[in-house]
Formats: sequence, structure tokens, C-alpha cells
Amino acid sequence: MQFAIGVDLGGTNLRVAAIETTGRNLETVDRTTATAREIVLEDMTSAIRSLVNRYKSTHEFVGIGVGIPGVVDLAGGILRSAANLPGWKDYPVAQELESRLGVPVLLENDANCAALGEQWLGAGIGLEDLCMLTLGTGVGGGLIVNGRPWHGVAGMAGEVGHMTVIPDGRPCGCGNRGCLEQYASATAIRRLAVEAVVSGEPTIMTLCADPRRELTAEAVFQAALRGDRAAHQIFEIAGRALGIALASLINVLNLPLFVLGGGLSKAWDIFSPALFRELKVRSIVFRTREELGAAQESPFITPTRLAGNAGLIGAARLPMLGQVCRDVCHPAI
Amino acid sequence: MQFAIGVDLGGTNLRVAAIETTGRNLETVDRTTATAREIVLEDMTSAIRSLVNRYKSTHEFVGIGVGIPGVVDLAGGILRSAANLPGWKDYPVAQELESRLGVPVLLENDANCAALGEQWLGAGIGLEDLCMLTLGTGVGGGLIVNGRPWHGVAGMAGEVGHMTVIPDGRPCGCGNRGCLEQYASATAIRRLAVEAVVSGEPTIMTLCADPRRELTAEAVFQAALRGDRAAHQIFEIAGRALGIALASLINVLNLPLFVLGGGLSKAWDIFSPALFRELKVRSIVFRTREELGAAQESPFITPTRLAGNAGLIGAARLPMLGQVCRDVCHPAI
Repeated sequence: MQFAIGVDLGGTNLRVAAIETTGRNLETVDRTTATAREIVLEDMTSAIRSLVNRYKSTHEFVGIGVGIPGVVDLAGGILRSAANLPGWKDYPVAQELESRLGVPVLLENDANCAALGEQWLGAGIGLEDLCMLTLGTGVGGGLIVNGRPWHGVAGMAGEVGHMTVIPDGRPCGCGNRGCLEQYASATAIRRLAVEAVVSGEPTIMTLCADPRRELTAEAVFQAALRGDRAAHQIFEIAGRALGIALASLINVLNLPLFVLGGGLSKAWDIFSPALFRELKVRSIVFRTREELGAAQESPFITPTRLAGNAGLIGAARLPMLGQVCRDVCHPAI
Repeated sequence: MQFAIGVDLGGTNLRVAAIETTGRNLETVDRTTATAREIVLEDMTSAIRSLVNRYKSTHEFVGIGVGIPGVVDLAGGILRSAANLPGWKDYPVAQELESRLGVPVLLENDANCAALGEQWLGAGIGLEDLCMLTLGTGVGGGLIVNGRPWHGVAGMAGEVGHMTVIPDGRPCGCGNRGCLEQYASATAIRRLAVEAVVSGEPTIMTLCADPRRELTAEAVFQAALRGDRAAHQIFEIAGRALGIALASLINVLNLPLFVLGGGLSKAWDIFSPALFRELKVRSIVFRTREELGAAQESPFITPTRLAGNAGLIGAARLPMLGQVCRDVCHPAI
């Protein structure tokens, strides 16, 4: 039996797992991400070492995959930028871990990892191609084509969050206007909620929020669950924006599956009716598919099945995709 | 030396070519597309027969590829619908040609053929991946991934013309509003021109038109070449819509090349400044690429190099992609 190590390095949590090539999770180490980069690296290497040493007597070790939320230089294994990991800009993560562990490390963007995880063990089991949208602080995207992450020419593919959905819409940090991320991220939900409250619209959203903290997307979700109209309208905006973007993606790519993940995806029941309403109007491919009765056969557009574990599972999948760890390195672990 | 037959069946012209696997065009037969389907099929089979018989003594015959403007059922070789070929709906083109010629026939959508042609011998030489947009009566699209047409799950990928660029924009025949095709097709250019003329805007567009016919996209192009402001504004609208759509495609797919073909692409010099203006604002990937100085290295977004021959060349390429004609069939030609 073989196993690989997956690392999910987030701004809040650092998780390391030993996962069999069968998909069985042997063990997960979950801890808070330290502030200092050096400590994060030590936490990571010690967790990897202890997991590898624990399972290498019964399993063959295949390698290490690391998922990071940011722009990744894949060939160089360098993290180019990561909004939630200050101090990591242009840091050669793979090389640094390799020099400490003596084992090749594959670095990958976290949305691509999540997409790969869903394709391997989640909503996309049995499919070779899919697109994943991660609805979190921002909106990320990962494409799997022929069973592998699709990187595009400069490794920058998957910027679904910066698709234009409303050409003259909200200004985005990227310099554009009307990006998907401005309507369908947790940040956007919170901003829309604050605007609704400030405008004096009747709502229980503030009552749902943690009194010590400002309004969050979670509070808007809780208010929507209790039937709050203003909260529902906010998710309607998100669903509509997602529908516009997905309609274009479906028309162009016609992939067999689109998976929506990230924290916001738990509001699926609230925003998805607006999403499907847009799709029916805007996607000739979606409509044709429905007319052919295919809608019943397969999910096509679905919330994540792996929730917060998709990225971790996908990271462990990376070294299993034909890149086997060099034997000479093993002793170093 | 090997050769294949490519067929480009358009609403106006039927073209059949014998092309070597080296890319050399041995011979092209070009004729007007007959009205009756049966005559078109006879024209097609006789042209194919004569070309195959002429070159099969000096070359090995590889197979036949046929490009058709419409929705194609690839597995069945059936033309599902084709707006410009009345009488061909749900017609089993491949099977019909096979029974007449005794040779396997590969049917493919014409935009996919054009994309394949550009990848093989045109703007995309040396690349494995690209996206082609054909700006004609409508806006078509073809994706090449790993050197092969990308069909998606139901063979309907590439509907770039029905990407939403302006959510509350012009109604489209597909049922949506604001589709790219409503701004960047020859039909859209003509409609915008008629509107400009009707509104009394000063313009020489009508003077550029053939006096016996109504205003055409060609007339708008000629007027724009002569500095007509109204004509320029129309191409500005087209360029802007293309920029919005391309920005999203680049952000998501990050392909190494986008090729613009079809009749309207000859107005590239007129509409491309607006296109690139949008891209710079709307595509974080395009901008990053420019900042890295990559813009000079490769074309990235470029007009067709093969003009009207892309589809014909790509059709001939189809049987060369690993699908070799069965020897037993040869005598039937």
C-alpha cells in the first residue's frame, strides 16, 4: 500500500494529512497557522516527518503535495503572492521544504488542490474534467482537465473570481469593475450586508452577528435561514452573479461538472435557485442539456462533497499523479 | 508521404482539399454549395474521389475530415442543426459519406476545424493549446487542448458567441440577453449600422454599400477605413464586447493564444485597440503577463493567419490525429 502527504496551508489553519492512494485518510494533523513564517515551516516539517515515520514501515511513501492560497510559480515551487500569508511573497516554499526533508515537494494553488480533491474523492468521482469555484474571502477557481490541474501558460489559470459579470459594476481590487468576486465572496456578502443595514432596511442580520465582532457572511447566512428578506436578497445577488459567470463557462467549456466549495457554499440552498434561474436563461448548453433530460442523470452543478477537506485531499493527490518521490531522498525524512 | 482529405462545407462554398501530413496543400476543389442536399453530397463525393484517386499512387491515404457550421453529434457523425444549411437537420453526414465512399469520415464543427487549422499551420504553430473565435454571421468558438479539439461533455463546448458580456443587453436568439454575438458578429455590425443610419447620425456607410443591396458589415468596414466616425464607433462596440469576453476567458483558461478569425477579423486594426483597452482593465492575467514583459515574446491575441482556409486545413488535420483510415475501405474510393 502507498501513501502521500498532503499539506493545506491556510491563513488560519495548517493541516497535514497522510492519505493512502486508495483515498483512505490515515491521519490528519490540524493546528493554528503561526504568524512567523519560520515557525510555520517548522510546524509543517515536524508534522510531515512524524506522519511519514509513522506510516513508512507499513506503506510505501509516494511524496508531498502542498496547497497554498496564492499565486504559485509551479515550475520553481515558489509562492509568488498570498494575501493571507504576509511574509511569504516570492518565497521558494518547495525548495525550502525539500532542503529540510530531503524529499521532492509539489506546490500548488489551493483552489486547484480543492478541484483535484473533489475529482478524486468528492463530487467528481469517475470524471476526468471539472471546474471548482471556491467561494471564500475571495472567489477562487480550479480546473481539472484529463485528471490533472489545468495551469494555463503562466500557471495563472482559474481566476474565475475575476470574470467580468457586470461590466460597469463594483470596482474590484484587481483594477476591473464587476468581477464575480465583488458579488459572490464572503467579503462581498458582508459589504452588501453593511450597505443594507446602513440604508436602514429592516433586517435581523445584526442580531445574528457575534456582538463582539462586525457583521460577517455567516451572520447574513443565519439571518437568511430565519427568513430575513434583506439577507435573502444579498444571496440572490450572489446567486445571480454566479449564474452569469457559470453560464459563460458552461457555454464555452461544457465541462461535465462544476463544484461550488468554500465557506459560502453552505448557503447553497439559499443562493442556488437564483443561480439556476440565470443559467436557464443564459446558457444554451445548459438548456439543451436539460431538454435532453440529462439534468436528472448527473449533478452537473453541485456543492462540494468534501467541504473543508477538498484542498487537503487534493494536495495529497498531487504526488500520486505520476511524480514519484526519489528513493534516494527517503532517508532524510 | 501521407495525405488526408479536408472538406469545408459552408452555406456559400463547398471546398475539398488534399493535404499532405507535412501541411503542403496538394490541391483544392472550390465550388458553390448547391441548394439541394443530394447534389451537395454528390459534389462532395466526386471531388473526394477524384482527389484521392489522383494522389493515392504517390501518397498513403489517411482519411477524411469534414467541417460543418452547426451543432455536430461527434460520436454519431450526425449534423444536429445548421442555420445556413436548410434540409440538413439531424442528417447522418458521416454515415452517408462512408456508405458512398467506403472510408471512415470524421465530422466536426467548423469553428473547431478552424482552431485546429490555426494550431497546426497558422497562428498557433508549435502550441498545444489555443482558443479560436470566428467572427462571422454569428460568433463561433473552437478550443484546442493538448493538440485536439475540446468538445466538452456533450460536444457543445465552444459556444463563445453566447457568453454574456452585458447582462441586461441586447436580446439574443438563444434566449439570453447581451451575448457576445449581439455585438461582435457581422449581423450585429449591420444592425448597429442600420440603427446609426436610421437615427440620422452623419455617416458615409450607406455610400460604401452596394447600391443594390442593404447595408453590410463590409460597407461599415469600408466606411471605417475612410475614417467614418459612426462606423468606427460600431467597431469600438464590437472590440469592447470582445475584450470583456476575452478577459474572462484569459482569466479562467490562461491559454497561450487566442486567434480571431472569420470575415470580421479583417477589421482587426479597427476594433483591436478597444479590445486591448478592455483587456488591460479587466484581465489580471493579461496585465501580469504584460508586466512580466511577455507581451513582446508571443502574439497571445492575434488575427487568423490562415484566413478562409483555417477550417479546410483543420478538417484535413482531423484524420491525422491518430484515427487512421481502415485499409479494407480503400478499394471503395
